Amino acid sequence: MPEVVRIPFEQLKTEFSRVLGRIGFQTEPMQRCANLFAENTLDGIYSHGVNRFPRFVQYVKDGYVLPNAKPEMKQRARAIEQWDGRLGPGPLNALFATERAIDLSKEHGIGCVALHNTNHWMRGGHYAWKAAKAGFVFIGWTNTTSNMPAWGAVDCRLGNNPLVFGVPFKNEAVVLDMAMSQFSYGSLESHQLKSVRLPVPGGYNRDGDLTTDASEILESRRALPIGYWKGSGLALLLDILAVVLSGGLSTAQISRRGTEFALSQVFIAFDISQLSNYRTIQQSLEDIVNDLHESVPADETQKILYPGERVLRTRQENLKNGIPVDQTIWEEIRSL
Amino acid sequence: MPEVVRIPFEQLKTEFSRVLGRIGFQTEPMQRCANLFAENTLDGIYSHGVNRFPRFVQYVKDGYVLPNAKPEMKQRARAIEQWDGRLGPGPLNALFATERAIDLSKEHGIGCVALHNTNHWMRGGHYAWKAAKAGFVFIGWTNTTSNMPAWGAVDCRLGNNPLVFGVPFKNEAVVLDMAMSQFSYGSLESHQLKSVRLPVPGGYNRDGDLTTDASEILESRRALPIGYWKGSGLALLLDILAVVLSGGLSTAQISRRGTEFALSQVFIAFDISQLSNYRTIQQSLEDIVNDLHESVPADETQKILYPGERVLRTRQENLKNGIPVDQTIWEEIRSL
Repeated sequence: MPEVVRIPFEQLKTEFSRVLGRIGFQTEPMQRCANLFAENTLDGIYSHGVNRFPRFVQYVKDGYVLPNAKPEMKQRARAIEQWDGRLGPGPLNALFATERAIDLSKEHGIGCVALHNTNHWMRGGHYAWKAAKAGFVFIGWTNTTSNMPAWGAVDCRLGNNPLVFGVPFKNEAVVLDMAMSQFSYGSLESHQLKSVRLPVPGGYNRDGDLTTDASEILESRRALPIGYWKGSGLALLLDILAVVLSGGLSTAQISRRGTEFALSQVFIAFDISQLSNYRTIQQSLEDIVNDLHESVPADETQKILYPGERVLRTRQENLKNGIPVDQTIWEEIRSL
Repeated sequence: MPEVVRIPFEQLKTEFSRVLGRIGFQTEPMQRCANLFAENTLDGIYSHGVNRFPRFVQYVKDGYVLPNAKPEMKQRARAIEQWDGRLGPGPLNALFATERAIDLSKEHGIGCVALHNTNHWMRGGHYAWKAAKAGFVFIGWTNTTSNMPAWGAVDCRLGNNPLVFGVPFKNEAVVLDMAMSQFSYGSLESHQLKSVRLPVPGGYNRDGDLTTDASEILESRRALPIGYWKGSGLALLLDILAVVLSGGLSTAQISRRGTEFALSQVFIAFDISQLSNYRTIQQSLEDIVNDLHESVPADETQKILYPGERVLRTRQENLKNGIPVDQTIWEEIRSL
């Protein structure tokens, strides 16, 4: 097992800033981007925080991500706007689009920003937390390069197209951040590395049987969409909607280019403060969450949690004890 | 196996009208409602067309559905409106909300209607087809009474909360209409009746093992959400959003009443004609669909279809040959 070091949040942010500065980020995008990678890591989403940082840096070095590019508006129809991400850093474009969707929702009740020509947003939940903590309901999704077969097929033509929801709750948020694949390739690889079976079937083996053996799925490349035919349909529709609303590239078009860049994304905000008072909303939400918490667990040591509840705990632990970072990755980042 | 009779579309509609007239529907809601049940049946969604009609009639007789009630606007924030369904027929309220969301989208680019105090909308796909055939992108969802456990729990506290998407395509539509449960209770019962195994695990048996035996799931009442923890989170979020946006009852609150009525629903329309020209959108969509169609199927006799593609074929077949209706159900309806 790789050794783990505990890095304080501020130190992690400073280190990200240093590296981003060296590869050409100007001060403001550098600080925003470093903060975002550090916050994702703080929240325990290591796969789309510190662990992904070296790859993000490489994409900048390779010219797929233009560090100082800013999005540009292409078309507007009152509450809905189409923006060109101009191949800027995905997380910064996504933050911008979230803030713009919020502004539009203040004006129109609901606001939608569709981005084309943008890049991987890292962790979609980041934008849902931001919007929800500011008091707005948020729905967003992105397309990706193809990484799973449609239901009934053997070759990868669908993206796992993450879908994200955020709702303000007790000064924090209920946040669901889910890709359309049952397990990410990162998760399959980590199960393989630890020689641990998947908790539920994650794909097909070469014989066409469902399997909980991650190595078999990594070999066949037949990862499962959530809910089989249902997630397959949902992944397709999220791609279609992102393309139709943003005017950008589809999963099929992105995949033909070989490298995952120039994606299409959608950000929707609802200004619920114009419809109901905060107290009424919070009472409804508390009732829903209380009911969920009263669930009888199959394993009596496990409480049933709402999406985002565990993130909150991890964030507090990591703030107190420092953020656990794989020693090898930490050294790699220090050497960048 | 029950015998099947072939009923022409117009005859089915006339028969529905006759029954609805007898239980107190005024002419206009009677015609709209009869047409909607007949169209759902024509499209092959028998479970939420002819087969569900007797239960709908019973709900009217029992006073849960008020046949001539019309929705009333409660609050508005420009592109988003909150309406009280006043316990009117779910399908008519949903049709109204779809049309109103379309009108709002013409004015604001995007339009959202959140309905509370409404009833079962029967088939969500109906509204997606309507909006998409009129040229609008549609997203809608409803909550339901509780019918599946949250992930990790044994008692039912989540609704299967169907989620629906529609996109205009070649004068028809791509339509995805999916509940958050892997299989509906109707489907479990039909597998049990035919003594056929489910194609994939659909829930847990009493020993806590995943099973493809529908009887075991009907016994344990532990049906699976799609994608396990993912569909569990999605079902919860759809309920939360429906409640927060509409100000209506949650799955928990509906379930405490025993009978499934006074639901909460959301209808969102995007007027994409204000963003892109029809030809560009259709080219993007054709490229996505063509790529999907080129998938290599696991079973080489099965072509990979987009959501809604099969519906179109069924509709054409049923228009030509008459709609297959279970003889027993047909006789029941004739006796109403």
